[in-house]
Amino acid sequence: MAKLFFRYGPMNSGKSTALLQVAHNYEERGQKVLLAKPGIDKKAGNRVISRLGVDRAVDILLAPEDSLLQRVLQASNFQTIEIACLLIDEAQFLSPEQVDDALALTVFHGIPVIAYGLRTDFLTHAFPGSARLLEIAHQLEELKTICRCGKKAMFNARMGTEGILRAGEQVAIDGLTARYEALCAACYLDPNATVA
Amino acid sequence: MAKLFFRYGPMNSGKSTALLQVAHNYEERGQKVLLAKPGIDKKAGNRVISRLGVDRAVDILLAPEDSLLQRVLQASNFQTIEIACLLIDEAQFLSPEQVDDALALTVFHGIPVIAYGLRTDFLTHAFPGSARLLEIAHQLEELKTICRCGKKAMFNARMGTEGILRAGEQVAIDGLTARYEALCAACYLDPNATVA
Amino acid sequence: MAKLFFRYGPMNSGKSTALLQVAHNYEERGQKVLLAKPGIDKKAGNRVISRLGVDRAVDILLAPEDSLLQRVLQASNFQTIEIACLLIDEAQFLSPEQVDDALALTVFHGIPVIAYGLRTDFLTHAFPGSARLLEIAHQLEELKTICRCGKKAMFNARMGTEGILRAGEQVAIDGLTARYEALCAACYLDPNATVA
Amino acid sequence: MAKLFFRYGPMNSGKSTALLQVAHNYEERGQKVLLAKPGIDKKAGNRVISRLGVDRAVDILLAPEDSLLQRVLQASNFQTIEIACLLIDEAQFLSPEQVDDALALTVFHGIPVIAYGLRTDFLTHAFPGSARLLEIAHQLEELKTICRCGKKAMFNARMGTEGILRAGEQVAIDGLTARYEALCAACYLDPNATVA
Repeated sequence: MAKLFFRYGPMNSGKSTALLQVAHNYEERGQKVLLAKPGIDKKAGNRVISRLGVDRAVDILLAPEDSLLQRVLQASNFQTIEIACLLIDEAQFLSPEQVDDALALTVFHGIPVIAYGLRTDFLTHAFPGSARLLEIAHQLEELKTICRCGKKAMFNARMGTEGILRAGEQVAIDGLTARYEALCAACYLDPNATVA
Repeated sequence: MAKLFFRYGPMNSGKSTALLQVAHNYEERGQKVLLAKPGIDKKAGNRVISRLGVDRAVDILLAPEDSLLQRVLQASNFQTIEIACLLIDEAQFLSPEQVDDALALTVFHGIPVIAYGLRTDFLTHAFPGSARLLEIAHQLEELKTICRCGKKAMFNARMGTEGILRAGEQVAIDGLTARYEALCAACYLDPNATVA
Repeated sequence: MAKLFFRYGPMNSGKSTALLQVAHNYEERGQKVLLAKPGIDKKAGNRVISRLGVDRAVDILLAPEDSLLQRVLQASNFQTIEIACLLIDEAQFLSPEQVDDALALTVFHGIPVIAYGLRTDFLTHAFPGSARLLEIAHQLEELKTICRCGKKAMFNARMGTEGILRAGEQVAIDGLTARYEALCAACYLDPNATVA
Repeated sequence: MAKLFFRYGPMNSGKSTALLQVAHNYEERGQKVLLAKPGIDKKAGNRVISRLGVDRAVDILLAPEDSLLQRVLQASNFQTIEIACLLIDEAQFLSPEQVDDALALTVFHGIPVIAYGLRTDFLTHAFPGSARLLEIAHQLEELKTICRCGKKAMFNARMGTEGILRAGEQVAIDGLTARYEALCAACYLDPNATVA
C-alpha cells in the first residue's frame, strides 16, 4: 500500500540531504522517482540543494494554483512511465489542495509520496502545507537537529540584531531577507534569548 | 528535561486505556500524577473511561476559558506537591492557549505532559487542540487501530444511515448524537463506502 | 502486507494491557485474533494478566519445542477460519525457531503478528526470543515506563535485600522467586544503587 | 541526558550520509564531534564514504581490542576539549565491550553517541556489535530503503551467480569479496530468488 509520509524538521535538520539520498536509493535500483517543489522558494530556484554540497534539478516546479495530481500524471505520461516515488521538498509551502492531491496519489494511483518540510514558521504556527500534512499524512516522522544548548531543536527562530523576532510576515526566505536559527522550546521561549 | 507528548489516534485506538496505564505506572512508584480533560465531553463527564472496562475520575475538568497553567499550579498547591506527570484525555478539545500552557508547564515548571487525543474530526480537519499540539508538542506518537479492511485506520468517519457523512458540525459526541468509525484513507475516501 | 512487530518494554511498561487492548480492537470489529504465550511463565499460567485488572485466557500455550506455525495453522483449522492477528505475550521466552515461524506466518500466510516482551534479562542480555525478534521483526516499537528517578526505564534489575543482583539464573519469575525493578541505564549502572 | 542511539538499516540505506549530515549540523554550530569506526572495514579504510559523494576521515580507527572509552577520553584530551557527540560508522563491527563503553560514555561522561550500522548479516543474524546495541541502546531508530519489489528492505542478501547465498563467513566486505542486495523478508525468503 502506497503511503504519504511527512518528514518534518526545523531549519538545517538535513531534509534536502535525506530527500536526495532517497532519490539515489531508488535510482540505484533502476526505479524512477519524481522530484517536486513549490515555486515559492526563490533562493534555490528549481533545484534541491543540500548543505552537504549535493544538489539536483526538480522535475516539477509547482505554482500555487497547480494541481499536483495533474502535474504528476503528466510527468508520468499518464502512468505509462512507472513512478516508484514522488519526493517533495519545501512541502510546507504546498497548498492544502496539493496535499490532498498527494494523498490521492497514494490511495488512487499507488504512488508513494514523501514530503519533506518545516513543521512551523518563526512564530510556531504551521504553514498551510504543513498544517494539512500534519492532519492527513499516513506517517509523521521527525528529522532532528540540535539547539545551541545541545537539546533537540524544534522551532525556527527568525533572528534580528537584538534577538528573536516575535512578529512579521510568515514567509521570508533564509539567507535572503531573513536569518533563522533552529532552537529548542526552552531557548525559543526564553525572553532574554540573544543572538548566537 | 520535561516534554510535551501528543499521543494521537483515531476513535477506539485505546487512548484512554493507555492513559490509565501510564497513571498506574507512576502511582505504583509512589509518584503523583494529575488527570485533566476538557469539560466539553459530556458523555463521560468527569471520568476517563476505557473500553476495556477501567475508569477513574479526573482531577481537573477544564472549562474552555480556564488557564491550564493556573489549574495545575493550584492542584499542586503551587508546586509544594510534586507532580510527576500531567495526563490529558480528549486533548483535541483543549483551546490553543491551554496547549501553550501545557508546553509552558514542561519548559518552565519541569512537569512532563502527555496529551491523548484525536488528530482530526470527521471531515479530516484538526480540532483546535490537536492543531496546536501538532505544531508544538516535543514528540508526536501515533496510537494505532485497524480499519474494517485490515489496514491501519487514520480518519474518523461520522456514519449516517446511508454511509459516511460529508458535512455537519465539528463536534458531535460518539454514542450520543453521532456514530463514528475509524477508517483508513482508502476506505474513508471511497465514494461508495457503505455502513458496516 | 502482514508484518511482524516486536513491542518491547521493561517490566511494568503495560505490555499485557496493550495486548489486551489490541485484541479488543479487533474483536469489536468482528475480526478473530489468536492469543499465544510460551508455557514457561508459571505465574500467570494460561492467562494474559494486566496490572490494570483485565485478563483473559490464551488460545495457544506453547511448549518450547512446539512449532508455532503448526499450532497457529491448527487453531485456524488450516486457515478455514480467518485469523486477523496473532498476539504473543511474554515473547522473550519464545525459541528462535518460533520467532522464525512468526515471520513465516506474516510472509507466507498473510497473518500479522504482534509480539510483546522484555528486551533484556536482569543482566542486560537478550533472551533467546527477544534476541531473534530484535534481528528479524519488521518493526521494533518501544513501550515506555519510568525509572524511580523519573527518566525512561530501560533495564530490569533483579533486586536482592542489599541492592541490584549482578549474577544468577536468567529466568526467575517476578513475584515468585525474584523481585524486579525497571530502571534507567544510569540507575542500573550505579554501583551504590539501593533497594527502593 | 546524553543517550546512545542505534540507527540501523540495511546496505545502501544512507547510513553514512546521515552520519555526515549530523556531523555537519554540529560543526555548523561550532560544536566538536568525533567520528569513529572499527578498523575491520578494509574497503573505506579510515574514511566515512557516502554513496552521495561526500566523505571525510575518521578521528578514531578502532582496533578490535581497543577501549572505546579510553580512545574517546584521549581524543578529548581527557575532556578538556568538549565533545558534543560521538558518531560511529559501521557499528555492527564493534565488540560488545566497545558498545558497553559507548553506553558508559553517555551515562558517566555525558557524551551522546550515535551508532550507525547494519542490524544483521547475510544470514539474518546480528553481528556482535549490533547484537549488543539492540540490547542496550537508549533508542533504536530504523533507516529505511526499498527492496527490488518496492517494499521496505530489511535483510542483506549476499548474492552469488545463481542467487542468494545461504552459507559462508559472516564478514565479506561489499564490492571486494562479495556483492550484497538489500531485500524485504518476502524476497529474501523466496527459495527461487534470482540475481537482479
